[in-house]
Amino acid sequence: MTQAVDAKHAGPSQTAQRIDFQTDPSRYRHWEIQVEGEVATLVMDVDEKAGLFEGYELKLNSYDLGVDIELADAVQRLRFEHPEVKVVLLRSGKDRVFCAGANIRMLASSSHALKVNFCKFTNETRNSIEDASAFSGQKYVTVVTGSCAGGGYELALATDYIILVDDGSSSVSLPELPLLAVLPGTGGLTRVTDKRRVRRDHADVFCTTEEGIKGRRAAEWRLVDEVAPNSKLETAVAARVREFAAASPRPAGIKGVAMAPLERRIAANSREYPHLSVEFDREARLATITLRGPDAPPPEGPEAMLAQGAAFWPLALARELDDAILDIRLNELEIAAIVFKSQGDPQSVLAYDAFLERHIEHWLAREVRLEWKRVLKRIDLTSRSLVTLIEPGSCFAGTIAELIFAADRSYMLIGQFSGDNRAPAMVVLGNVNVGDDLPMSNGLSRLATRFLGEPQSLEQASNAVGEELDAERAEALGLITFALDDIDWEDEIRVFLEERTSFSPDGLTGLEANLRFGGPETMETKIFARLTAWQNWIFQRPNAVGPEGALKRYGTGQKPAFDMART
Amino acid sequence: MTQAVDAKHAGPSQTAQRIDFQTDPSRYRHWEIQVEGEVATLVMDVDEKAGLFEGYELKLNSYDLGVDIELADAVQRLRFEHPEVKVVLLRSGKDRVFCAGANIRMLASSSHALKVNFCKFTNETRNSIEDASAFSGQKYVTVVTGSCAGGGYELALATDYIILVDDGSSSVSLPELPLLAVLPGTGGLTRVTDKRRVRRDHADVFCTTEEGIKGRRAAEWRLVDEVAPNSKLETAVAARVREFAAASPRPAGIKGVAMAPLERRIAANSREYPHLSVEFDREARLATITLRGPDAPPPEGPEAMLAQGAAFWPLALARELDDAILDIRLNELEIAAIVFKSQGDPQSVLAYDAFLERHIEHWLAREVRLEWKRVLKRIDLTSRSLVTLIEPGSCFAGTIAELIFAADRSYMLIGQFSGDNRAPAMVVLGNVNVGDDLPMSNGLSRLATRFLGEPQSLEQASNAVGEELDAERAEALGLITFALDDIDWEDEIRVFLEERTSFSPDGLTGLEANLRFGGPETMETKIFARLTAWQNWIFQRPNAVGPEGALKRYGTGQKPAFDMART
Repeated sequence: MTQAVDAKHAGPSQTAQRIDFQTDPSRYRHWEIQVEGEVATLVMDVDEKAGLFEGYELKLNSYDLGVDIELADAVQRLRFEHPEVKVVLLRSGKDRVFCAGANIRMLASSSHALKVNFCKFTNETRNSIEDASAFSGQKYVTVVTGSCAGGGYELALATDYIILVDDGSSSVSLPELPLLAVLPGTGGLTRVTDKRRVRRDHADVFCTTEEGIKGRRAAEWRLVDEVAPNSKLETAVAARVREFAAASPRPAGIKGVAMAPLERRIAANSREYPHLSVEFDREARLATITLRGPDAPPPEGPEAMLAQGAAFWPLALARELDDAILDIRLNELEIAAIVFKSQGDPQSVLAYDAFLERHIEHWLAREVRLEWKRVLKRIDLTSRSLVTLIEPGSCFAGTIAELIFAADRSYMLIGQFSGDNRAPAMVVLGNVNVGDDLPMSNGLSRLATRFLGEPQSLEQASNAVGEELDAERAEALGLITFALDDIDWEDEIRVFLEERTSFSPDGLTGLEANLRFGGPETMETKIFARLTAWQNWIFQRPNAVGPEGALKRYGTGQKPAFDMART
Repeated sequence: MTQAVDAKHAGPSQTAQRIDFQTDPSRYRHWEIQVEGEVATLVMDVDEKAGLFEGYELKLNSYDLGVDIELADAVQRLRFEHPEVKVVLLRSGKDRVFCAGANIRMLASSSHALKVNFCKFTNETRNSIEDASAFSGQKYVTVVTGSCAGGGYELALATDYIILVDDGSSSVSLPELPLLAVLPGTGGLTRVTDKRRVRRDHADVFCTTEEGIKGRRAAEWRLVDEVAPNSKLETAVAARVREFAAASPRPAGIKGVAMAPLERRIAANSREYPHLSVEFDREARLATITLRGPDAPPPEGPEAMLAQGAAFWPLALARELDDAILDIRLNELEIAAIVFKSQGDPQSVLAYDAFLERHIEHWLAREVRLEWKRVLKRIDLTSRSLVTLIEPGSCFAGTIAELIFAADRSYMLIGQFSGDNRAPAMVVLGNVNVGDDLPMSNGLSRLATRFLGEPQSLEQASNAVGEELDAERAEALGLITFALDDIDWEDEIRVFLEERTSFSPDGLTGLEANLRFGGPETMETKIFARLTAWQNWIFQRPNAVGPEGALKRYGTGQKPAFDMART
């Protein structure tokens, strides 16, 4: 899953390794997917020798980023390759342990940036489970046998239903604070208070009790949904599977499409995908992602779409964009800003949007749109400055236009470049931009977030759907940040990017995390914006990561030494 | 404003100083209150030689905690001493500057704990301005003449209306990121996105532009409400004052009550107030706050309440509690937990609650309840473990019972202590506990937050209002964490407190900040829980506070050197 290239800070072991997010079940080391009719079982059986980096063993079903990359892949495949599945069981392949959570030696030896990005990705994977449940009707059930600790319990928390075996020893716990002086980093606290709505003093007891809670009290405190003695466990599981399967809205007898491996050419300063290119300007610390519009009209109908499968343009592009973003996040830490560009015909993009809209009741069309939703959310949560440049020859329309509104700033050329006879760039809004299909983590569309303070602008944007908007009109509608003519274009953007990339990366991360998500908060924004920020803070404090801190001293037999001043 | 006592880490200058939050206008060094009929003017004219600590000068109307202690006092006095005031103007007493924000040398030389607690207090002061506007009908108007930068603009953001003079140089700005590599620490980003709802890309430009925005663009981007040329400024101000005064719901011709100085006896290990005692067990790192119930029945009516003035029991106790909490926050950093106890007759407490309820339309009764709301919010936001012990002789009823629900955990004795003939403790709920008068920052009452996951428990609590609840009944209703008998009491609580105080203080701060505020988010929780957490993180990062960081190098002529890896 890793290959040596020149990427600094990537792994805990100081070995420069490129982390690859592409995998498939034939290569899994830690998970097994078993599908039987409408029920799938994801078996977690971590190979302790197969850590992503050197220097630690993944004992007791503990995990690192490599384990989670497989899980994310499995969740994705269940949606696309196994649409017949209505219930997914999450179980441990080990005897006395469900999952010990994130591997502590891995955390202790990781750079701050890796810890933070690891937590972000695991959070996104947990969210993808909740998304599958909410929008694809695949219900997840966790069967806890053995100890389910920390990140293990956080994984369970992301599922719809938790069954705990009542055997006198199996337990759920969040021992991060008492054991490691850090917080659960994968949404645990927020899901305890806001999803399971555990009473706050019970939550306090739970999160400060290293050994966790077992048996009936776990159910009484709403930490799990059901407890069953060993002898009745399988009966209880089967009953829940039947119940959830019967309630699932998924159509029966449908067949999935294979998620073929992505075609990629990885070079030192570029990544080339069929529909997308990434170019790195390492001196300027910029990555330019150019998305290419479709080169053929949409398929004639759902059957033709199914036949195209993973090659269906919107699906292929979404997967490529996702991979490119993850690559930059984990492997290109020095890149300060991502510049989005596009090439193609806006009307062709809109034709695909219209196709998806027309067939949105078809499971695959829905899954493709849901995939775009998740990829765009991933972009919103990427801690790099995001800039969209709208130039002649671009196709910022409909779904692709979301990249204008996901960006921290956007610039659009007025008219043509001197010596370039391509027609002036046009932005075209689609229903997808003004509707609710592609919400951000705050639950609002990007345009609704943008226009929180000016509802009339949202209405004007709705009225402009389908219209070809030149730079001045787009600026007047508030859709872009600045419209510039050819004379100013190059200098203004160069100066802006030079200034931007000179700022403190930490300060920018905090600034962007605040400015991108105005308006309402949801469980997701609480997890990413609140819990994560506290966790990041604690991950920097000597009480956790200093030479005498709890993370460093874990397993040494020595107790950590804390500076006891409260902040 | 400071006096030398033994308090570590308190100030940036390493001098051990006790920070005192009590002041009055005769002692102000930085502010002036001018009251003319229904209009008050708060003039900020910072004495640069009168910093709270040594080592910096408060140039250009920059501020430190001492300046903000005076502002908080002034806002409070305007409500209690000048209820006739309907509009408050905020103006600068300096010529070319409105306010340069928090003093940078002070920040650069402050301990992390002081920086964080300084920001928290300034946030609470800004919130108290918004509270006065929303609930006391005192509208705040900022008149910006000169440069209004960073914390200066954040102060303006807390007011209802901002008028900016359009003189070619006066401007508003949040230069923290470009200048200092940190974030605005007093709610600036959240108020820009959520209160003024500035478009996110405009906010991005604004927050990365060191020199800020002036003139018409500031109004077009909603950063200010109005711009006026110099020649028309006073006319514009007068027009707004008339408009807001005419719309104010405040009754005319009422006279305030004097906020007499608090009586306090400060000793090495205790603080003694008329209605409250604080005892420090420094070895155990505990502060025990004992609140005492009233020793006389409530006054006969509003006139008698006015005659009692600051001696009116609920008002006196609220002010004492507020002072005690702030003292612990800033001067007692090694104290890990605050233990709340009470002494008195529950029915007497309820009689005062009933008095306030009966006269809630009277301005003073309303102000007293609003003061309790603010003090309890301050407790919710205090980064120490909060524990309430309910023992025989206590008076946890009505308003005082909120301390049970504000605590991270509560313990109640079943029956009597051996050898103690006082009657068993009883908790008595009042309307104030089950209503909406004392919301937390999340907008919900403490009981509604507690029972997010079990609405039936909230209803049961409502049905139990007025009932004397013994420990077992209180536990059954979910109002306390644990009911213990005499045999277990001492050991259980000792073991719990020993364990609690052995945990990492940083981890506890993050844990409690997450568990205390389940449910909805508001602008306040966004500021305290999200923006603050990011700011805390950045305040720890070498890019800000390291030897080559921006805070350290500010003013040296040397540019900061950043580690450019994004996190």
